[in-house]
Amino acid sequence: MSNKKPNTPKGTRDFGPAESAKRNHIISSIKAHFLNYGFSQIETPAMENLSVLMGKYGEEGDKLLFKILNSGDYLQKVSQEDFEQGSQHVLPSIAEKGLRYDLTVPFARFVVQNRNDLAFPFRRFQIQPVWRADKPQKGRYREFYQCDADIIGTKGVFSEVELTRLIQDVFKSLGYPNYLIKINHRELLFGLAQWCGLATKEIQFCTALDKLDKIGHEKVTEELNNLGADAEKLVQLFDLLGQDWNNMQKLEGIEALLPENPGIETVKTYFRYLKDSGENVSLDLSLARGLNYYTGIIFEVVAQDVKIGSICGGGRYDDLTGVFGLPDVSGIGISFGLDRIYDVLEEKGLFPDSLKVSAQALITHFDEKSFVHGMDLLSELRANQIPAMLFPDLAKINKQFNYANKIDIPYVIVIGEEEVKTRVYTVKQMKTGQQHSLALSELIKLLKAE
Amino acid sequence: MSNKKPNTPKGTRDFGPAESAKRNHIISSIKAHFLNYGFSQIETPAMENLSVLMGKYGEEGDKLLFKILNSGDYLQKVSQEDFEQGSQHVLPSIAEKGLRYDLTVPFARFVVQNRNDLAFPFRRFQIQPVWRADKPQKGRYREFYQCDADIIGTKGVFSEVELTRLIQDVFKSLGYPNYLIKINHRELLFGLAQWCGLATKEIQFCTALDKLDKIGHEKVTEELNNLGADAEKLVQLFDLLGQDWNNMQKLEGIEALLPENPGIETVKTYFRYLKDSGENVSLDLSLARGLNYYTGIIFEVVAQDVKIGSICGGGRYDDLTGVFGLPDVSGIGISFGLDRIYDVLEEKGLFPDSLKVSAQALITHFDEKSFVHGMDLLSELRANQIPAMLFPDLAKINKQFNYANKIDIPYVIVIGEEEVKTRVYTVKQMKTGQQHSLALSELIKLLKAE
Repeated sequence: MSNKKPNTPKGTRDFGPAESAKRNHIISSIKAHFLNYGFSQIETPAMENLSVLMGKYGEEGDKLLFKILNSGDYLQKVSQEDFEQGSQHVLPSIAEKGLRYDLTVPFARFVVQNRNDLAFPFRRFQIQPVWRADKPQKGRYREFYQCDADIIGTKGVFSEVELTRLIQDVFKSLGYPNYLIKINHRELLFGLAQWCGLATKEIQFCTALDKLDKIGHEKVTEELNNLGADAEKLVQLFDLLGQDWNNMQKLEGIEALLPENPGIETVKTYFRYLKDSGENVSLDLSLARGLNYYTGIIFEVVAQDVKIGSICGGGRYDDLTGVFGLPDVSGIGISFGLDRIYDVLEEKGLFPDSLKVSAQALITHFDEKSFVHGMDLLSELRANQIPAMLFPDLAKINKQFNYANKIDIPYVIVIGEEEVKTRVYTVKQMKTGQQHSLALSELIKLLKAE
Repeated sequence: MSNKKPNTPKGTRDFGPAESAKRNHIISSIKAHFLNYGFSQIETPAMENLSVLMGKYGEEGDKLLFKILNSGDYLQKVSQEDFEQGSQHVLPSIAEKGLRYDLTVPFARFVVQNRNDLAFPFRRFQIQPVWRADKPQKGRYREFYQCDADIIGTKGVFSEVELTRLIQDVFKSLGYPNYLIKINHRELLFGLAQWCGLATKEIQFCTALDKLDKIGHEKVTEELNNLGADAEKLVQLFDLLGQDWNNMQKLEGIEALLPENPGIETVKTYFRYLKDSGENVSLDLSLARGLNYYTGIIFEVVAQDVKIGSICGGGRYDDLTGVFGLPDVSGIGISFGLDRIYDVLEEKGLFPDSLKVSAQALITHFDEKSFVHGMDLLSELRANQIPAMLFPDLAKINKQFNYANKIDIPYVIVIGEEEVKTRVYTVKQMKTGQQHSLALSELIKLLKAE
C-alpha cells in the first residue's frame, strides 16, 4: 500500500455521517423557518464569470477569489510579452470564471438577469457553499456554507422586524437561548461621528468605535482624539455608551444628542413593531459592520457564552444591483454562518441525541434461511418508515452485533430458526441491553416510538 | 442602465423558486429512501487535489476537469522554457486543485483517508453537484447533481437486491411507473464474447452489442463479423436476444450456451431474492456499461415513454480504491441523475400541484392600523406552521392581490377596520375565487388543510 494517503485540499473538509447529520439538523431548521416566513429558494451555479465577481469585494477580495483555468489550450492567447509581465497581467487571458465568494453578488446577478420575471417585494433564501482562498486557520475554511435570506423591493422597517423574528425562531428551535442580536443604524453612527466633529471621517470613526469591546474605551478615545474628535463630546459619548440602559433609554439618550437624525425614528418604529417580542435584541451604538454597503439598520448576532465571533449578521442596503446596471434595488438581508453555529451547538452539547446517523434497526441472522426471512422483515420495517438494514453476509452473530455497535444502530433484531417459525422476534436495545420478544406489529410500534 | 446583462457561465444554470421546489421534491424523495435503507450521508469538498482526480477518468476525462488556478503569483514556478512548451506542460505548475468530476473518486478518496474509522460494510449516500467542462448541449450541463448510494465491503448479491428495491421505491414515490431497470452481468457479456470466438476482444464485443437498440441486429452482426466472430454462433446469439422471454427463460437460454459461467448463478440468486418484487426489472443481455470498472451485475434505468437516455445507473465493482493504494475494496453503487429525472417528471406532468414555491397565505391590509394588526395574525399563522407573509408596505389592496397572484400564493387574507374589531377575517382562495369569513381557529384549520 502506498504510504501517501490522499487528502482533501488545504482548508477544505469532508463531513462523515455524524457531522453530516448534525449539519443537516441546523440546515433543516434554518430552512424550515425560511419557508415558514415565505422565503422562496433559489440556487445559483458554483462558478460565476469573473466579470461578475471581480471588483465586488475590494482588492483583497479579488485576490481571495478562486479562479478557474480556461479549458483546452488556455495559453493560446498569452504572448511572450504577456508572460513577461507576470501573473496579474496574464490572468484575464487564461481564466474567465471563478468560484462564488458569497451569496450576495450571485443573488444580485440573478436579480438583474431575471428582473422581468420577478415580482417585488422578492423574498429569497439560498443555502449553498462559498469559497475563499483565505489562509486556513481554526474556524476559518476555504469552503463553507452560507444560509442567506433577503427581502428586496421594500423599504419599510417591518422587514427588519421579520428578520429579527426569524433569527429568534431559528435559535429557539435549535435550543440555544444565549444569543444576542445586536442592532445599530448607520445613520446613528454617522450622526455621532459628525456630532463629535468627525464629518468626512465617519468610516474611521466607526472602525475605531467598533473596537470598543476589544480594546476598551480609553484606547478608542485615544484613536478618536488622534482623528481630531472634540474631546469634550467624546466624554459625553462614552458616558452614554457606558450606561446600563434598556433599548428605549439608549434611544432617548442618543436622541438628546442627535434630535434630527433620521435613524432615530426608524429604530423607534422597529422596537414598536417588535413589541413584546424584543427578547435578546439590544441596541448597540458601537456596532459597525459593512458600512460601505449597508445604509440602514445593521445586525450582528453573537453567542454570549461561546468565544467565536458573530454567528449571523446582515443589514439594510439601498443598492444591491447598481454595479450590474440596475439602480435602486433596496432591501435587507441576513446570513447565518453554518460552521460557527455548529461549533456553538457542539460546545454547548445542544445537538439532539436522536439525530440518526444510520438505521434504526439492524436485522441479524444465523443462517441462509433466517437471512432470507430477514429480507421480508426488512421490507416490512421500511414500509413502515423505520430505517432498517439486514446484515448483508452470513457471519457470526457477534460480528453482526459489533457492527451495530460501531455504527450506532440503536436496535438489533435477531432471527434464528425459532423466529422464522413463530414470527416472534427478539429485539435488543443496544444502549440499555434490554431485550424483548415481539410480534411484528409490536416490534414496529417499539421501533417507531423513538 | 448597461445593455450587457450579467450572465451565468456557459453550461451552468440558476434555479428560481419554482425549479428549486421541483428539484427539492426529487432530492427529498431520493434522500428519504436512502435514509430508510440505512445509508449514511457524507459530503466531500467541491475541490479535490488534481493528484486525486487526474488519470481516473481516462484521457478525455482529464481534459474535462475544471482546474483551479493556484492563488497568488501562480506563474512563479513557470520558467521561460516551461512557457515555450505550452499549456499541457505548464499545467502542473499553476494548478494543484480541480472541481470534482463525479462522486465516486471523492468517495474512494474518503474511504482511504478514513479507513481506520469506518465500519464495513459501509453504506454511504452523497448528493452533491459535479462539474465537467463538456460542450454544453440540450440536457447536458457543466454543473449537475448526482445522487449516489454505494454499499462497500460486502460481496453478497443481496446488495444488488437492495439497490434494485431502492430504485423501485424512489420511482414509485415520485409517481413514475414507466421506468425499466435493465440488468446484465459482466461475466455473461465476457462469456458470450468468448463463446463467439472473440476472446481478447471482449470490450469491443460489448461496445458493438450495446448499440443493438440503436442500429439493429444486422449492423451489429456486421461489426461483430468484422471483429472475427463465428458467424454461426452470431446467428444463435441474435436468435436468443430476439426472443420475447421473461427473465428466467432468458437465463435458461444463456445457461444453455454458457453452462459454466459464474454470472449465471449470481443472476439466478438475484432473481430468487427479488421474489415477487421483480416488477420493472429486465435481464438485458445487450446492456453494457462501464466495463473497465464494473465486474459483476450492472444496472441501467431508462424511462420507457420519454426519450432521454438513462436516468439511473450503476453496478458492482471489485476495486474502488486500488488507485489510492488500498486494494480489495469491493462494492456496488448506483447514481440517480437529478436533471434527467426532472425532465421526465416535467414531461409527464408528475410534479405535485401542492409544491410550495412561496407562502400559503398573504395578509393584506388597508391602513397602518390593520397592517399592525396583521403582524399579530402573521405570528399566529406561522406559530401554527402555516407559511405566511404580510404585505410589507402600505399599498392599494389591488396591488397586494396582484402580488399574491404573481407569486402563486393560494390564499389572501384581508384585514380592514371591521376585521381588527371583530377578529373575523375574510380569506379568499385565489384559484377558485371562493371567500370565507373565519375566526382565527377556523382560518388556521382551512389553511392547514391544504
